[in-house]
Amino acid sequence: MATSIRPLAVSLGDPAGIGPEVVGKCWDNRGRFGLPPFVAIGDPRSLDAVWDGPIATIDDPLEADSAFDVGLPIMAIASASADLPGHPSVAGAHCSLDALELAVGLARSGSAMAVVTGPVSKQQLYAIGFAHPGQTEFVAERCGVSPGNVAMMLAGPSLRTVPVTTHVPLSRVSDLLSPSLIETRGRAALRGLQRNFGISEPRLAIAGLNPHAGEGGALGREEIELIIPAIEALRAEGWRVTGPHPADTMFHAAARGQYDAALCMYHDQALIPLKALHFDEGVNITLGLPIVRTAPDHGTAFDIAGQDRADPRAMAAAIRLAAECAVHRAAVAA
Amino acid sequence: MATSIRPLAVSLGDPAGIGPEVVGKCWDNRGRFGLPPFVAIGDPRSLDAVWDGPIATIDDPLEADSAFDVGLPIMAIASASADLPGHPSVAGAHCSLDALELAVGLARSGSAMAVVTGPVSKQQLYAIGFAHPGQTEFVAERCGVSPGNVAMMLAGPSLRTVPVTTHVPLSRVSDLLSPSLIETRGRAALRGLQRNFGISEPRLAIAGLNPHAGEGGALGREEIELIIPAIEALRAEGWRVTGPHPADTMFHAAARGQYDAALCMYHDQALIPLKALHFDEGVNITLGLPIVRTAPDHGTAFDIAGQDRADPRAMAAAIRLAAECAVHRAAVAA
Repeated sequence: MATSIRPLAVSLGDPAGIGPEVVGKCWDNRGRFGLPPFVAIGDPRSLDAVWDGPIATIDDPLEADSAFDVGLPIMAIASASADLPGHPSVAGAHCSLDALELAVGLARSGSAMAVVTGPVSKQQLYAIGFAHPGQTEFVAERCGVSPGNVAMMLAGPSLRTVPVTTHVPLSRVSDLLSPSLIETRGRAALRGLQRNFGISEPRLAIAGLNPHAGEGGALGREEIELIIPAIEALRAEGWRVTGPHPADTMFHAAARGQYDAALCMYHDQALIPLKALHFDEGVNITLGLPIVRTAPDHGTAFDIAGQDRADPRAMAAAIRLAAECAVHRAAVAA
Repeated sequence: MATSIRPLAVSLGDPAGIGPEVVGKCWDNRGRFGLPPFVAIGDPRSLDAVWDGPIATIDDPLEADSAFDVGLPIMAIASASADLPGHPSVAGAHCSLDALELAVGLARSGSAMAVVTGPVSKQQLYAIGFAHPGQTEFVAERCGVSPGNVAMMLAGPSLRTVPVTTHVPLSRVSDLLSPSLIETRGRAALRGLQRNFGISEPRLAIAGLNPHAGEGGALGREEIELIIPAIEALRAEGWRVTGPHPADTMFHAAARGQYDAALCMYHDQALIPLKALHFDEGVNITLGLPIVRTAPDHGTAFDIAGQDRADPRAMAAAIRLAAECAVHRAAVAA
């Protein structure tokens, strides 16, 4: 089957960050990490600067499968200058954006089975006129999907969380929540579990906002006024939804066994448990896209770039999960 | 030494809850759990109803040490009626309050080395006119300490957290925070680490409130206006304090190794990581008292009382930690 040899497209992210190093280390450990063939997309000089392994420059993603055994396949993005690790530049930002664009294009066209995005610097991207809050919104737009209809899922080996609100001050969370927003994110989470994880009847646990999920209104009324109506609406559509759960008692092992994903009301409610349990293996997956897109849940880490200190496990987990999700999607579509 | 044979005083909590069962199971497993002699305080009938082990009724706490090898020592509290497990009553609430009063009195007088409090029902206590928010405030008052000057620490094997605000709606947290409140709780945490844990130069990690600790003000200004001033004030007193840390990246194993306790801005910020990591072993310890007081971090669980399903590990951890803290205090005082 032709589909079995399509590689994953892995953008290297900012050439001065740890993206090139962790991608190189993933190739080194491809057997141990259980990674399928992938093609790196970025400036080969950024790999050479931090990694001693063999590089196989290719022009067609279909060459990646055979090249993968002898070197790390790369589709080269020309950059105006070679950045030193830890020293980001405008040229590097352009390079990271071009790599992202090509990676998404390959997945959209079907030449790559999924996209994995390396870490970029938002500050650097904003400096070259990038008008999206982050890579997620850029990918959504390139796929013709409204950013409001995608959802971010954080996935680790024993926990998946989806935040309803993300990068906003904590004091604004209550005002930003609404039954329709909770419903929209909940539906994206449930459909995402079906499409990307092959779970036909997914179970979603919805967190409360307040301590003890509000204790019947004594510690806040958002559960009664906003969250329970959303739960009832999702249940009326036939989804398996529970909650609102007190957030502090829903993330231990026995509780995690009762659901496939947790819908959380704010950034840290989703990310504290995920990173406490799975700091080195957290994967960000964008739900609601026509393609599979994952990313390691860490940043450019300019402070340790080029020092051979970057841990490749999150990137490996992102590559592995992208492949698994692509297989589930192909099975659903077949 | 006379101090070595003083027992810990363990109140059974509500006689219809799981307190009696977990205390009985702690005696059964006293060797495996590594527990020092303790005396139960409550209605012996509540133990008989759920536990088959031997009971040794005593009148003087000093008898507990020798009695402990042959049975669970208990100082009996008379109750107007024997509650069925899972069926709380007004008489049971009176009994749980009398047991708490006696246990605190024994510790205050020096007859017990520390107090461990079993779970009570606040609803039942309120029904008999109990005017404190919970056991913690009652104990503080009996010790002559303003409840505003005590702090709750949650302790597990690899993490200790202290919340600045507790049972309030999430949307009110920002308004309730102030530099002086953060300082007060931080100082209580630091002194508590010295007195109860024997850490002469404790390290306190202070969490931010907003995602990414506010990202320099872009995601909220509480870090700049409230938290950083409190950190600077504590540092000016010579304390080892770091932060504000992004809450999602401070609870993985490597990060936890950098501090002795985390000061958290709200209930779930402190309790999500603690319970995700140590659900069955979480201990609540009250800092700022002249006595040592711990409690298992679970409630009465009326729904499973009397079914032999209650897990004694949190009660065992509370008893063990109370003994350790009492030893550290004695060493400091010596």
